[in-house]
Amino acid sequence: MARSIASLLDHYRVTDGKKFRLKKIKPGDTGGLASEIADDAKSLLADGTQRLDDLQARLYAEDRWAVLLIFQAMDAAGKDGTIKHVMAGMDPTASIVTSFKQPSAEELDHDFLWRCAKALPERGRIAIFNRSYYEETLIVRVHPEILGRQQLPPKLVTKNIWKERFEDIRNFERHLARNGTLVLKFFLHLSKKEQKKRFLSRLEEKSKNWKFSLADAEERGYWKQYQAAYEDAIRNTATPHAPWYVVPADNKWFTRLVVAEAIAEGMAGLKNEFPKLDAPKLRELAKARAALLRE
Amino acid sequence: MARSIASLLDHYRVTDGKKFRLKKIKPGDTGGLASEIADDAKSLLADGTQRLDDLQARLYAEDRWAVLLIFQAMDAAGKDGTIKHVMAGMDPTASIVTSFKQPSAEELDHDFLWRCAKALPERGRIAIFNRSYYEETLIVRVHPEILGRQQLPPKLVTKNIWKERFEDIRNFERHLARNGTLVLKFFLHLSKKEQKKRFLSRLEEKSKNWKFSLADAEERGYWKQYQAAYEDAIRNTATPHAPWYVVPADNKWFTRLVVAEAIAEGMAGLKNEFPKLDAPKLRELAKARAALLRE
Repeated sequence: MARSIASLLDHYRVTDGKKFRLKKIKPGDTGGLASEIADDAKSLLADGTQRLDDLQARLYAEDRWAVLLIFQAMDAAGKDGTIKHVMAGMDPTASIVTSFKQPSAEELDHDFLWRCAKALPERGRIAIFNRSYYEETLIVRVHPEILGRQQLPPKLVTKNIWKERFEDIRNFERHLARNGTLVLKFFLHLSKKEQKKRFLSRLEEKSKNWKFSLADAEERGYWKQYQAAYEDAIRNTATPHAPWYVVPADNKWFTRLVVAEAIAEGMAGLKNEFPKLDAPKLRELAKARAALLRE
Repeated sequence: MARSIASLLDHYRVTDGKKFRLKKIKPGDTGGLASEIADDAKSLLADGTQRLDDLQARLYAEDRWAVLLIFQAMDAAGKDGTIKHVMAGMDPTASIVTSFKQPSAEELDHDFLWRCAKALPERGRIAIFNRSYYEETLIVRVHPEILGRQQLPPKLVTKNIWKERFEDIRNFERHLARNGTLVLKFFLHLSKKEQKKRFLSRLEEKSKNWKFSLADAEERGYWKQYQAAYEDAIRNTATPHAPWYVVPADNKWFTRLVVAEAIAEGMAGLKNEFPKLDAPKLRELAKARAALLRE
């Protein structure tokens, strides 16, 4: 079954931005998988996380590569839930999730990559970004008045700013790739209709409604602008070394399966191995074993 | 069942160090729970992590308190596995695990609390320390030659150093408690015999033996000194606001149950509540809902 999901990945993976159009991916798509599979999704997901667990153990043991997973989406697309499910199979000691909210004053006093650079994964580790520097080409682009409050020297804010930001991001990600970080980016692609449904159910749930603000609902008014900004960001930053996955997000079980499979595929490609023990190390282990048995 | 484990906690909780003796807790103890319960331990643990999930949602929503969980133990006592199981029920976005290894040059150029202070949890979050500043009263105490490499001005290294360190730790933890951090400390109490068994099985497992070093086995030679150092650390730093739990660690299923229960009990004591929505906020939500339904 893992194989049948793996075979779908090509459709959602974008490695050449120029050819990409958002409308090619439908938020309600389940890759032709029958809805009955949803019942099995939990155990499929468990399989996926089990594979991740093994891949992560090798990544950590080899200690050469790092993995950066970036999640972007409209509100209620399921970022938090997806991250939680994917993480369930991982070693929490070697993984870290960072959520990027509205930048602080200190963060605004630096370039827009800075706060994310600080949270990059060490070799052997996995970092998950819940939102990222891409926000600087999304919310800031949809609401350009935010730019005016960002402490940039005014003469540097020109009509080329988005083009420049995309170039800076491309160069940053290429730098990461060249230095041993696998970069995978996920856009959880939700429909406006499904967002409405999820917002309404949030409003009715006591454990969730306290964090709902009018602003969340108001952002729906900019739906088209956001979709255009996402499309443009993906077109400008999808590369073979830092691909985007545009994952249908109207069905949570499908989103999670695709994301887990994409991460597993990407990590498997690193071909991490447990360190090969050389003769002196093997002798050392034999000695330790003998000493223990002698006790 | 949760109740019967809860009722055991008193025995393992140390809030008044002066009265504590390590020999009162047996590593092989399972609190009188029949070994058949081990079969149910998985589902019991799932119950426990489910409770943690709810408690954490409230902690995060209220955004007043923070939680610091410190894990200390001899090698192979099961720190990593326990942390992984406890974390499985938590929100990875609001929890962070930090492992403290041999200090770096930068870390040694600061006081011994500094690197841990940097990793303290924000309000609403849970931080898990895999080892901690307690190492400075454990491995450093058993091998005092390490002190000589720690860049301390020599005249400050006197025979009072351990007493001073305990006092500094007590004051640090009291400060944290006073400012809204729940501090719970876990010593996973393993027997020397069980460690031997686990070491031997590690030596035979390819995914684990690469990280085994002769030094791990050699530390067994200092078993008594370590046990004395742990006892003294617990005696000097167990307080009502920063208790130690001395958890029998020869049976992993039991260790995990006790730890999950202790965390749940501690967090329940915070009585975190989802924010109460005031009239203006309720009106805002009603407005958002009406707007969505009107679309």
